[in-house]
Amino acid sequence: MKAIIRVDLKPGVLDPQGQAVAQALRGLGFDEVADARQGKIIELDLDERDPSRARERVEAMCQRLLANPVIERFAIDLVAETDAPA
Amino acid sequence: MKAIIRVDLKPGVLDPQGQAVAQALRGLGFDEVADARQGKIIELDLDERDPSRARERVEAMCQRLLANPVIERFAIDLVAETDAPA
Repeated sequence: MKAIIRVDLKPGVLDPQGQAVAQALRGLGFDEVADARQGKIIELDLDERDPSRARERVEAMCQRLLANPVIERFAIDLVAETDAPA
Repeated sequence: MKAIIRVDLKPGVLDPQGQAVAQALRGLGFDEVADARQGKIIELDLDERDPSRARERVEAMCQRLLANPVIERFAIDLVAETDAPA
């Protein structure tokens, strides 16, 4: 089973990396860029076939390592291997 | 209009950051983690209402700044503001 985890800064938390991206894009002439925010995507291959167990474990991984729950939020998508042939 | 851009390393390109994540998770007792890969998500607010023009511009942004086309691939999703109220 695969887990696709998206980790973003919570709305309202200052995102200096996103601001740098927006500024760099405008510097290149992309003047239509009003704002940019940057987050990360983590894709895990899991030796686990039970979706509810997998979700519980991945939530624990996010809380303990992958996200900082004080300033970040995360979203988890589970994909059965048969749905997504590599 | 919003653009959501996902940038990943191409399959086959070594991902040391992903390997570090997998190793750290296993070190915390998440033994079911077989592999991890890490990418980034960039969300842009664009002052542009024409979707085909927006896509063309965002592709140029990816080629010039947001992705390294030698080792990374990118995927662009456009979302009209009315579809996604903040």
